[in-house]
Amino acid sequence: MTTPMRIAVDAMGGDEGIAVMLAGVARARRRFEGMEFILVGDEAQIRAGLETHPNLTAASEIVHAAGVVASDEKPSQAIRRAKTTSMGIAIDMVKKGRAGAAVSSGNTGALMAMAKLSLRTMPGIDRPALAALMPTLGENDTVMLDLGANTEVDARNLVQFAVMGAAYARIALDLESPRVALLNIGTEEMKGTDNIREAAAELRGATHLRLDFKGFIEGNKLSRGEVDVIVCDGFAGNIALKTIEGTARFVADLLKRAFSSSTRSKIGFLISRPATELLRTHLDPNNHNGAIFLGLNGIVVKSHGSANEVGVDTAIGFAAKMLRDDLNRRIAEDLGNFEAKAA
Amino acid sequence: MTTPMRIAVDAMGGDEGIAVMLAGVARARRRFEGMEFILVGDEAQIRAGLETHPNLTAASEIVHAAGVVASDEKPSQAIRRAKTTSMGIAIDMVKKGRAGAAVSSGNTGALMAMAKLSLRTMPGIDRPALAALMPTLGENDTVMLDLGANTEVDARNLVQFAVMGAAYARIALDLESPRVALLNIGTEEMKGTDNIREAAAELRGATHLRLDFKGFIEGNKLSRGEVDVIVCDGFAGNIALKTIEGTARFVADLLKRAFSSSTRSKIGFLISRPATELLRTHLDPNNHNGAIFLGLNGIVVKSHGSANEVGVDTAIGFAAKMLRDDLNRRIAEDLGNFEAKAA
Repeated sequence: MTTPMRIAVDAMGGDEGIAVMLAGVARARRRFEGMEFILVGDEAQIRAGLETHPNLTAASEIVHAAGVVASDEKPSQAIRRAKTTSMGIAIDMVKKGRAGAAVSSGNTGALMAMAKLSLRTMPGIDRPALAALMPTLGENDTVMLDLGANTEVDARNLVQFAVMGAAYARIALDLESPRVALLNIGTEEMKGTDNIREAAAELRGATHLRLDFKGFIEGNKLSRGEVDVIVCDGFAGNIALKTIEGTARFVADLLKRAFSSSTRSKIGFLISRPATELLRTHLDPNNHNGAIFLGLNGIVVKSHGSANEVGVDTAIGFAAKMLRDDLNRRIAEDLGNFEAKAA
Repeated sequence: MTTPMRIAVDAMGGDEGIAVMLAGVARARRRFEGMEFILVGDEAQIRAGLETHPNLTAASEIVHAAGVVASDEKPSQAIRRAKTTSMGIAIDMVKKGRAGAAVSSGNTGALMAMAKLSLRTMPGIDRPALAALMPTLGENDTVMLDLGANTEVDARNLVQFAVMGAAYARIALDLESPRVALLNIGTEEMKGTDNIREAAAELRGATHLRLDFKGFIEGNKLSRGEVDVIVCDGFAGNIALKTIEGTARFVADLLKRAFSSSTRSKIGFLISRPATELLRTHLDPNNHNGAIFLGLNGIVVKSHGSANEVGVDTAIGFAAKMLRDDLNRRIAEDLGNFEAKAA
């Protein structure tokens, strides 16, 4: 299958509405020359929305979908009516080979369930994983996976996540040999569960892989930028990612409270606003938007539900980059190398 | 056994040295009228250190220990020479009934291993748990457990952690009926592992317990102050706690970088310094210091390795409060109630 340079977009998903989705796609369109789009959703609404985006209109096809997956809908429910929803049909475009990637800002659980059921896992991968980029103090973002696709995993799954995460980091972060670590509760060899220790032993031995295995990393080092890929099960990953999000907001809220505690501090805040704006930009989820399901026969990107047009642009940009650089072929190659050496 | 109002202190543990430990104990001594101390460690050094603390000298006994557990020593190694170390002997004072609680700023893993081996679990408790207080946006701190004593747990362990955590919160936070939640990757009933769902079902049914079960809580809500006790296995708890610590430092580092990015922002920072100092105080680990091992026959408190004298005072204050309010009797009562109703 040659992957078409075409991205299917669930135009209806997300909290911000169709206008923001289309504005985001239009921004991405300008960055990726020759990229085409399939916009899936209510045809009349999409047509109306496209009136202000002539450049996107020329590069797009509209595919009508009558249904929308609700943000609070149970995945088990959503999946039964997948074929009538904008989310399900966008994924179906990938399955049918009409698009190389699908992007949605809708319900994560439903997207995960639909993508797995429809696209199935790549040969050599037992389970797909959800990966995202996190801001760090270092030069580049860090890839983290799995973020919730699998609550329980074995050592073999973790090793596959490491291989997939490294392939993703090579493209997304433009690195030769990404530094990979396993999330654990200590850095000594005997720490953690049997699965984690076993995965570490395998990765330590796999020196032919195009990654630089760094052992274990603890929760307090996630944002230091000392590694490029952090691998864990979906339970720990989800807890860690949401804890980062919650703590960043917690500190920001405390700061706001502190800055408004006196006239003096309010004045200080106003003077230093350019500095705090820098911080806001660095942490803004819209600048790191786009979680990707790795290990499926096709690329599916989850954009944050509350992403603005910059966020949607970022997420679509990732999908476009993965498509252009043929992420799945690279994963397949690495897995092939790995299995060949292991055999 | 009547619990003596006496606390055994490992005077040698911690990165800051014996002078800081003794200064912290001296501060706590002033807050807890009638409390006595057993100071365990190198006798000559303790005697020299006590010269500047006459009020503490009057309330203290010195017990000599020749050995010290190194901060990077493997627990399995440390435990073999427990009886010669200040940490091991401090715990032994509790076992022998000479002290009601032990406090150490030393190696966490070694402390956990020694405490479990020496004091054993209380009747009705299968596994001890490590609990700590975390700062929140709410009116009081939140108790979180387990933070690393058990990497894998079953539903029964989680329920016992909830009961112990609630008993601890009633004393430490002075609450009638603490709000308890299980850490999970979603708030819907079907989310998470079998163990978590099973524990939730049991806690939902246990309406006679002196706690208010609130279901599941996600990582992004840990610092909101919406619940008083957060229960999880030691792997997830360790990841979450360290991620909070790391993210708070990450945001602070970014802020520092932003504030020093221009002369203007440096001036703004200087003007608003009282506000940022407020924030620093709120987040200072020394003001929340003291993790406690719950479920053992005796109280053992872990003070942070880098705690200053305020931090040591805070940790000893917790130990004193638990001792005075008879934490373990309260846990036993609650467990008795729980088992009686369940039978």
